Amino acid sequence: MEVRLDTDRSKRKGFSEVIFCEGKSDKQLLRIAEEINAQRLDTAFSRMDETQFAAVSSVIKEFRYDPVSRVGNTLFGTIDKNSAEVAVVSAGSTDVPAAEEAAQIIEFFGSKAERFYDVGVAGIHRLFNVLPDIKKADVVIVAAGMDGALPSVVSGLVSSLVIGLPTSVGYGIAENGKTALRSMLCSCSPGLVVVNIDNGVGAALSALAAVKPKRADFSNVNLPDE
Amino acid sequence: MEVRLDTDRSKRKGFSEVIFCEGKSDKQLLRIAEEINAQRLDTAFSRMDETQFAAVSSVIKEFRYDPVSRVGNTLFGTIDKNSAEVAVVSAGSTDVPAAEEAAQIIEFFGSKAERFYDVGVAGIHRLFNVLPDIKKADVVIVAAGMDGALPSVVSGLVSSLVIGLPTSVGYGIAENGKTALRSMLCSCSPGLVVVNIDNGVGAALSALAAVKPKRADFSNVNLPDE
Amino acid sequence: MEVRLDTDRSKRKGFSEVIFCEGKSDKQLLRIAEEINAQRLDTAFSRMDETQFAAVSSVIKEFRYDPVSRVGNTLFGTIDKNSAEVAVVSAGSTDVPAAEEAAQIIEFFGSKAERFYDVGVAGIHRLFNVLPDIKKADVVIVAAGMDGALPSVVSGLVSSLVIGLPTSVGYGIAENGKTALRSMLCSCSPGLVVVNIDNGVGAALSALAAVKPKRADFSNVNLPDE
Amino acid sequence: MEVRLDTDRSKRKGFSEVIFCEGKSDKQLLRIAEEINAQRLDTAFSRMDETQFAAVSSVIKEFRYDPVSRVGNTLFGTIDKNSAEVAVVSAGSTDVPAAEEAAQIIEFFGSKAERFYDVGVAGIHRLFNVLPDIKKADVVIVAAGMDGALPSVVSGLVSSLVIGLPTSVGYGIAENGKTALRSMLCSCSPGLVVVNIDNGVGAALSALAAVKPKRADFSNVNLPDE
Amino acid sequence: MEVRLDTDRSKRKGFSEVIFCEGKSDKQLLRIAEEINAQRLDTAFSRMDETQFAAVSSVIKEFRYDPVSRVGNTLFGTIDKNSAEVAVVSAGSTDVPAAEEAAQIIEFFGSKAERFYDVGVAGIHRLFNVLPDIKKADVVIVAAGMDGALPSVVSGLVSSLVIGLPTSVGYGIAENGKTALRSMLCSCSPGLVVVNIDNGVGAALSALAAVKPKRADFSNVNLPDE
Amino acid sequence: MEVRLDTDRSKRKGFSEVIFCEGKSDKQLLRIAEEINAQRLDTAFSRMDETQFAAVSSVIKEFRYDPVSRVGNTLFGTIDKNSAEVAVVSAGSTDVPAAEEAAQIIEFFGSKAERFYDVGVAGIHRLFNVLPDIKKADVVIVAAGMDGALPSVVSGLVSSLVIGLPTSVGYGIAENGKTALRSMLCSCSPGLVVVNIDNGVGAALSALAAVKPKRADFSNVNLPDE
Amino acid sequence: MEVRLDTDRSKRKGFSEVIFCEGKSDKQLLRIAEEINAQRLDTAFSRMDETQFAAVSSVIKEFRYDPVSRVGNTLFGTIDKNSAEVAVVSAGSTDVPAAEEAAQIIEFFGSKAERFYDVGVAGIHRLFNVLPDIKKADVVIVAAGMDGALPSVVSGLVSSLVIGLPTSVGYGIAENGKTALRSMLCSCSPGLVVVNIDNGVGAALSALAAVKPKRADFSNVNLPDE
Amino acid sequence: MEVRLDTDRSKRKGFSEVIFCEGKSDKQLLRIAEEINAQRLDTAFSRMDETQFAAVSSVIKEFRYDPVSRVGNTLFGTIDKNSAEVAVVSAGSTDVPAAEEAAQIIEFFGSKAERFYDVGVAGIHRLFNVLPDIKKADVVIVAAGMDGALPSVVSGLVSSLVIGLPTSVGYGIAENGKTALRSMLCSCSPGLVVVNIDNGVGAALSALAAVKPKRADFSNVNLPDE
Repeated sequence: MEVRLDTDRSKRKGFSEVIFCEGKSDKQLLRIAEEINAQRLDTAFSRMDETQFAAVSSVIKEFRYDPVSRVGNTLFGTIDKNSAEVAVVSAGSTDVPAAEEAAQIIEFFGSKAERFYDVGVAGIHRLFNVLPDIKKADVVIVAAGMDGALPSVVSGLVSSLVIGLPTSVGYGIAENGKTALRSMLCSCSPGLVVVNIDNGVGAALSALAAVKPKRADFSNVNLPDE
Repeated sequence: MEVRLDTDRSKRKGFSEVIFCEGKSDKQLLRIAEEINAQRLDTAFSRMDETQFAAVSSVIKEFRYDPVSRVGNTLFGTIDKNSAEVAVVSAGSTDVPAAEEAAQIIEFFGSKAERFYDVGVAGIHRLFNVLPDIKKADVVIVAAGMDGALPSVVSGLVSSLVIGLPTSVGYGIAENGKTALRSMLCSCSPGLVVVNIDNGVGAALSALAAVKPKRADFSNVNLPDE
Repeated sequence: MEVRLDTDRSKRKGFSEVIFCEGKSDKQLLRIAEEINAQRLDTAFSRMDETQFAAVSSVIKEFRYDPVSRVGNTLFGTIDKNSAEVAVVSAGSTDVPAAEEAAQIIEFFGSKAERFYDVGVAGIHRLFNVLPDIKKADVVIVAAGMDGALPSVVSGLVSSLVIGLPTSVGYGIAENGKTALRSMLCSCSPGLVVVNIDNGVGAALSALAAVKPKRADFSNVNLPDE
Repeated sequence: MEVRLDTDRSKRKGFSEVIFCEGKSDKQLLRIAEEINAQRLDTAFSRMDETQFAAVSSVIKEFRYDPVSRVGNTLFGTIDKNSAEVAVVSAGSTDVPAAEEAAQIIEFFGSKAERFYDVGVAGIHRLFNVLPDIKKADVVIVAAGMDGALPSVVSGLVSSLVIGLPTSVGYGIAENGKTALRSMLCSCSPGLVVVNIDNGVGAALSALAAVKPKRADFSNVNLPDE
Repeated sequence: MEVRLDTDRSKRKGFSEVIFCEGKSDKQLLRIAEEINAQRLDTAFSRMDETQFAAVSSVIKEFRYDPVSRVGNTLFGTIDKNSAEVAVVSAGSTDVPAAEEAAQIIEFFGSKAERFYDVGVAGIHRLFNVLPDIKKADVVIVAAGMDGALPSVVSGLVSSLVIGLPTSVGYGIAENGKTALRSMLCSCSPGLVVVNIDNGVGAALSALAAVKPKRADFSNVNLPDE
Repeated sequence: MEVRLDTDRSKRKGFSEVIFCEGKSDKQLLRIAEEINAQRLDTAFSRMDETQFAAVSSVIKEFRYDPVSRVGNTLFGTIDKNSAEVAVVSAGSTDVPAAEEAAQIIEFFGSKAERFYDVGVAGIHRLFNVLPDIKKADVVIVAAGMDGALPSVVSGLVSSLVIGLPTSVGYGIAENGKTALRSMLCSCSPGLVVVNIDNGVGAALSALAAVKPKRADFSNVNLPDE
Repeated sequence: MEVRLDTDRSKRKGFSEVIFCEGKSDKQLLRIAEEINAQRLDTAFSRMDETQFAAVSSVIKEFRYDPVSRVGNTLFGTIDKNSAEVAVVSAGSTDVPAAEEAAQIIEFFGSKAERFYDVGVAGIHRLFNVLPDIKKADVVIVAAGMDGALPSVVSGLVSSLVIGLPTSVGYGIAENGKTALRSMLCSCSPGLVVVNIDNGVGAALSALAAVKPKRADFSNVNLPDE
Repeated sequence: MEVRLDTDRSKRKGFSEVIFCEGKSDKQLLRIAEEINAQRLDTAFSRMDETQFAAVSSVIKEFRYDPVSRVGNTLFGTIDKNSAEVAVVSAGSTDVPAAEEAAQIIEFFGSKAERFYDVGVAGIHRLFNVLPDIKKADVVIVAAGMDGALPSVVSGLVSSLVIGLPTSVGYGIAENGKTALRSMLCSCSPGLVVVNIDNGVGAALSALAAVKPKRADFSNVNLPDE
């Protein structure tokens, strides 16, 4: 058996498995789609290309796809809205795909994602313009490539947890996000944590884990008994 | 002016600045101690060696010091207890200093730190023995050096946010914590975020930022008006 | 002479040379195929693409090819079955090609390969479900990308030699398997050794070398006299 | 509780925990020594300095220490000899401490260690002089620093499993063993696996795991019932 | 001849050689001191320890030394003041030694150094307080360790050339200044250039080269004819 | 809002934003082009491919494009010439695209760019032939890949600020410009600063910032009131 | 002027410039071809693809091209044979392109290249078979990828200078030749020097420089007076 | 047997083994000294500290030691002078220990070492002053730390083989010689080869191997029959 879907995850974690599509064969994805469809288990898919979207939606009728973030998800209607609110900030416009991956996952799991894009430190007045709104969020995700300096600045200004999301945007010594990642990890700003490069899903799920109490004690997913 | 204390931080972040002592001259630390003492601003100090402890406590009478974590802090009594609870887990016994740095900071800011030490994956039954208690915490910090595998395993089993705290414990290709750091960042377990190597203070303050609502809306620190 | 086939290897090592196809020109491969065919020396080929398969099978009639692992091999029937049994475990479904490369080579040389796929630490109960069967094997190979945490966990639970097979699966700081490789090397679990990234052949041949006594003293390959 | 001894390990792995002393406080080691002494559980200690040796042997009377390898071990007499034989080879004389760490651990667990030191590739005739004896072993451990070329050469010549043990010997781009480690991992010689830099204990325990059948089904350690 | 003083440098570059003391033997430094003293060529020394200061000042009577920056210099009085003004900014108080090395060299060559220390991004209001004064400078040097984010922010706000001076301050993945260096190089802020880690002398001399016209056409050093 | 053009930059920095095209979607670029066209704000675009050029010039009629440097720019005629002169030097002919990116940006902002190409250290007489002309410039930019040795040599010979521009030209251990970058940062030549690999725009804007006084106090761009 | 041919090189170095084609535009190569053709200066071209070969041979009639090594060269007949002999050894058959690049350049400049291919350490008897012939050469070049162990072994056995030529052959931690390069640099075998990865031209020209006396005092190229 | 002296090396390589002292215990060195003394085999020792010098010279009466290079050697008088001449060049005065290690070994084996120290590219006229003398040598060794640019420049100007000797001199991104090493490997100058960082012995022995014909066909060492 090549694929073992972790159907137990909602019970353990409060949210279902997000299927990472990159590197999976069509055969593997179709098998996953069939299992999900049979169980009517609401599920999101990340790093999904157009071909994979076509394959999965041939099996699951209730399915949507966002080409910017490459996130797809089922629409079985089993997940309720909750009151948690996450600010999703991006330094540049090329960081939007990673930021949007986070935003789409947050919305899929019933929370609210407020977007603040293209507010990097090269023109820092753009950040100060939107800062009061960012401060209202329960958690803040900040996507940045190149020097990765924006999460440090944001984290120095807000009291919520800030999740740094380094992106692979950049060239030369930016080394596909490694400099942004390292820079965020070395921030002196308190309350800043970091996920892997381009890991919008991880940033989103960590934000949701942090606001767990607001997600109504995990009751927003219909689970069979243990 | 060589040192500008960020006395405004409590208002912005909900907790006062933690003074990082490594690399600071005695002259700089004494000046900081005098300013803190004059303001009666409850403050913690990290990476403090015995000599620095002696210097600072010569200025501030209400001061305590923990040699394992090298954390010191004032005892002005301005910080109230709150109901937040953080589990602090360590993979090995040599990871205890980093874990304990986190635990001490959590306690300094009025939250509860529950310790679960030496439960690494080489003998994974040790983890399962204490798992039910770890699950009760609002946030979980997991300190690990070497392969840094423990936070991945924990994060797969609990629904709270897990903060991976890589430690510089190890030798050879462990490269002073770089392998543990990278391993944690690459985890497939959802809800795992990471801080810099040996950054117990950062792990603690991020845990506190995540449980902000439980810290009574920042009212636990007496602040002057803005 | 550009290519010197190591036809002496079976005598020295107990198994014949496995031909690594990547980077070899069709001209080089055809020459190798002709020499093998003339000697009727049972031989496996790794990292073989469809074009190379076509070229070699045009020379050697008794030939099979597995597209998932990209392993091909002759079917001259000179290799007998033996009683050695190797468990081949994978953390994710995208690690299957590397794991399967190992499994195919093990089977080619007459041993038994038991597969346990998609049992990574993000849902660790999947591992415990199959652990009793893994424990029966003489040697265990564990393929994992990303954080490479699974071999550490397995090695803490079984008494056999565990061979960590890091895969290039992952993104960002996973750096094409480097993090998985480093993580496995830094494991505290006793009895874990490591091979190069995606080196399924190396993992398989090391497993076979470890169980040498069960392979009937090298007598399973018909060798000319020295 | 800072230290949780993995007393269950013999049952799971067939050999007891080896205590890594580097970074452990005297307080921690004394506690471990007392527990071991009370249980009469035969145990080895690695990376032990003279001070730690003094501390532990003040608690455990039946104790010996080897200053070259920095391995110490109890002498409770609970471990029987077995018929497994491991060849321990070193490239240079400065690689001896790492090689000897492996040899001492092998002997502690009742197997035989045959030493072949200072036979590196700069004068390769030295290796050929001892090759017939190396070939007799069940498993071969090869310690090498600098370019780490020796394990490749040995692995091309023997049919047993070869465990490459990179050492931190060297300067400049040898980078404390990283070049040796990488070189061994990239070997084309079949049947070569690798452990972390200077990890003599890991090499020894992996050799023992590989020859498990010769260690009489784990019966050489007296264990309480599960 | 082991040492060849580049006495021609003032003519080529507009400022005399700064002697880097680290790694030079006392014998070498004494020889340099004697040559400088004989020529009455005003010269600065960097990375000078107390012992080296004692050695050189035993030869040159007109000599001063600053222990914070470890810069020493002759006082022959051959260098005139000029109108150039350089702002020297530091992120933290531990970055002061590197910043001060730059400031001392700027002052030695007759320009004005305005210091703005401990204004890092964790408390960014501290920067905005002094920004109007920083804007007045002809060139700005910004010293920062850890995440190296401050130069990016400053460079987004001022129209002068900004020279990023990464410092070795930090721990873990800060890797002795490498993260700060990389982060500065990847800034999107226009007008930011970078020098080597802790290279305060290089930052200072580059600032002076940029404001060359204000240094009165190199006439501030008395030079013999070519 | 995905894109926030920093229209305020001219006032802060003395030159308008240069739009980095790589990674931007056509939709994003068209939106930027429309905003620029509406404001008649003279703007340059870097890393622009032919398709992007077609898209932008469909919106902006007054537009030119240089395929070697991949720089495009509007021709609204709002930028006046100034008296600043920058020498742009390249080590090899393959470094020309990066060097030319710098030269085009310098010319776009009204300064003069003097080109000296293919004068690397392997045939150093080529440099000495043009040195007198290089010395006349206000600032010198030196582009080099491979060993990056040329900026060191140039900086030892001229009194102006030298900006090292490492290029991704090279193979093997040149690692896409990392060796050139590191080599320039380690130069002992005074007055040498460095920008990111292939960052011709950054080199140009830094050169312009250094010669700010010659650019007539920022009056060369028509700006609306603050 | 974008391209400055170093026509003076033969006089300085004893051999003419070898044109590196990768990254050069057709326009640049045609210009070089015309200049060479006009001067009748015998010249080799490396890293030349089929298109570039077509372009250059459209200008220069006397031209040949070797597709395995991608070396092309003019046939003006100005270079005489000399008595120097270089052994060119390769570890594997995939290392042949790099080795052959060296061999072709050696032959172009009139020396003799003796090839010994596919004699790597995994089957070391293949090396010993040809060792007596390798020993006859004036200099030995050894090309190897993966672990790069062969040059170490060869250098321990011959008295001539050995030039290690690391190749980008390999996968995983071989990192495109970096492991081979590092391994060769760390060899303990005396008389081994190293060039950049895949730098066959550099290995060849260094071999020729080493045997300079045998190349008849540089008289084999017809040069104009200085 | 921990130490196996390679007494056969003179016959194979034309020069006896140079004993690398770093990391060898006094016991090991004394044993080597006794064997050398008994055989009257003239031998050099590198990286020898004062204590090791005392130990060895207590056994061997005919012994000398140079503290700058830390090279010691026996004075049995068995090695004759030869006509080979090697130029040893250093970029800075702090590179002298590495350069001098090479020079001492060259002289020990009977060749002539001409020293040209402190002629780095920051003041390149110093190099041109001594260039005519450097050109007279059979081989040139160039020691440089920091940016490692000098060997590139020298190699562009002389027709002999140039051996780049990177030194660990430098700070920051010089990373203990790694930048110098990489820079030398990436040089475009033909005829430049490289050895490990600080490997003066390797540079010297390679120079001697290159000039083998001038060393009188290996007859300068009195060897017993094979």
